[in-house]
Amino acid sequence: MPGISEPAVSAAELPDWRGTGPRQAIVEFVAAVTDPDSADFVPERDRIAVFDNDGTLWTEQPVYAQLMFAIDRAAALGHPTSLEELHAGGMTALMELIKLTHAGITTDEFDAASRTWLASARHPRFKRPYPATVYQPMLELLSLLDRHGFSCWIFSGGGTDFMRAWAGEVYGLPPHRVIGSVGETEFRNESGGTPELVKSPTVQVINDGPQKPSSIHRHVGQRPIMAAGNTDGDLAMLQWTAASPYRTLELVVHHTDGDREYAYDRDPILGSGTDQLLAAAAENKWTVVDMAADWATVHPPA
Amino acid sequence: MPGISEPAVSAAELPDWRGTGPRQAIVEFVAAVTDPDSADFVPERDRIAVFDNDGTLWTEQPVYAQLMFAIDRAAALGHPTSLEELHAGGMTALMELIKLTHAGITTDEFDAASRTWLASARHPRFKRPYPATVYQPMLELLSLLDRHGFSCWIFSGGGTDFMRAWAGEVYGLPPHRVIGSVGETEFRNESGGTPELVKSPTVQVINDGPQKPSSIHRHVGQRPIMAAGNTDGDLAMLQWTAASPYRTLELVVHHTDGDREYAYDRDPILGSGTDQLLAAAAENKWTVVDMAADWATVHPPA
Repeated sequence: MPGISEPAVSAAELPDWRGTGPRQAIVEFVAAVTDPDSADFVPERDRIAVFDNDGTLWTEQPVYAQLMFAIDRAAALGHPTSLEELHAGGMTALMELIKLTHAGITTDEFDAASRTWLASARHPRFKRPYPATVYQPMLELLSLLDRHGFSCWIFSGGGTDFMRAWAGEVYGLPPHRVIGSVGETEFRNESGGTPELVKSPTVQVINDGPQKPSSIHRHVGQRPIMAAGNTDGDLAMLQWTAASPYRTLELVVHHTDGDREYAYDRDPILGSGTDQLLAAAAENKWTVVDMAADWATVHPPA
Repeated sequence: MPGISEPAVSAAELPDWRGTGPRQAIVEFVAAVTDPDSADFVPERDRIAVFDNDGTLWTEQPVYAQLMFAIDRAAALGHPTSLEELHAGGMTALMELIKLTHAGITTDEFDAASRTWLASARHPRFKRPYPATVYQPMLELLSLLDRHGFSCWIFSGGGTDFMRAWAGEVYGLPPHRVIGSVGETEFRNESGGTPELVKSPTVQVINDGPQKPSSIHRHVGQRPIMAAGNTDGDLAMLQWTAASPYRTLELVVHHTDGDREYAYDRDPILGSGTDQLLAAAAENKWTVVDMAADWATVHPPA
């Protein structure tokens, strides 16, 4: 097809993926949808890929980074709490903590507070900043997709503003492609002052489960052709993607590596399992990434 | 600055703008923020421009196209109503009509219904499809901005799904940059069926007034450096833009041309005026476009 020149897709673009099934599935998929002579060709404008964040692109154990941020911020605001209290209090206690620590502050101030915390906080086991607990093989996958004309988006249960304080830079994504749960913001423009957006305690969207396809529709307005997740909270997003008329790829990141990361089948706070996701993967022949077997490296070099 | 090569900005890119103040203001602004040697230089990733739609990019008189669509669809669904009834019933009647005609239908079906209506409906005065009542000078402005590295976004009070059925193609924007009011959608995945998103009657966001900066924060995650609007419902968006640390441009489209379009200072349905917007424009030296004086053409050639 004259005028279209697509670079070749190579397994060498994924150096930290071992030569097992998932790497092959990714390379074959990207090669097929970017080959103008293939029946599976997808025009560049429709190459949308969506990713869960916690546990799919970075480590979510032993607790979400954002929850540690909230606990530290609550203490600084004079309301100390602990993980034990939060576990005992369940979703109600968690939402109270989020409202306390994520509201009554301008969006600019919240961004600064998030960045300050991220610069000093360290992961308790890996002794490195939380953004350095991203998965090196997934960074390589994001780069590969970007090089081959995909638009990659994050649809996470985490808070949008907290994620945008670091995820854009780390993953190489503009802020508008980093979407999570959101609270309302209130526009204030007091006489003589500067216009501000103030974060309100009203949670507007909890971006998990069946909300993810709704958020994708709202923020992208197109059906993805690739999706990656790691718990049942991502199942609807993968089902929505799989129903595209185009050829699609669904990736399930399975936490099997207790030595290099964590081996688990239940997320640390919300308690989503993986039973439904793994069953759907088996039934639909989705690609399951066995972290211990399929990844040569987990985190980037220190 | 080696490696950066920006194309020159020329008034010839705006052939349907007369050589008056607004054209000069646009050209000077774009030249300044794209010149790497200028103190006003803005990197490409931060060149965000936001536009209202109804009355700013296309004709909104005598009634919004989307309202005509809703009236026609209500009749087809066995619930005929009229503009007179809607005026008498106010906002309550309007919301009831929107719920009746914009819910209980999948997103794919709604897209098809919108496109079918748009293909046959004609503007009562101009006798052309509604999408052909876009403003030719604004199309030229969108193109100019795109050529010079801007990302243009629409933040309208209209419904997102209705706008995306036509606006993306007409304005040359991907769907994710067309944002309006939104209702909730429900993910359905019945056994043996295909996953669907069903539009719900619950309105989540009415994208007008102070909601526009909140929507910009949510969907873009960056402060714009250019904004255009035509009623007081756009004032907060222009104020939010003007408070950027970068050099900015605020455009107010003033409907002064009863011969070629409509002369008015109050929007046709919601009743937003222009007093506050024009006062803010005068106070802050924003650029007011006098449609009769500043535009050589209003609509594209038939």
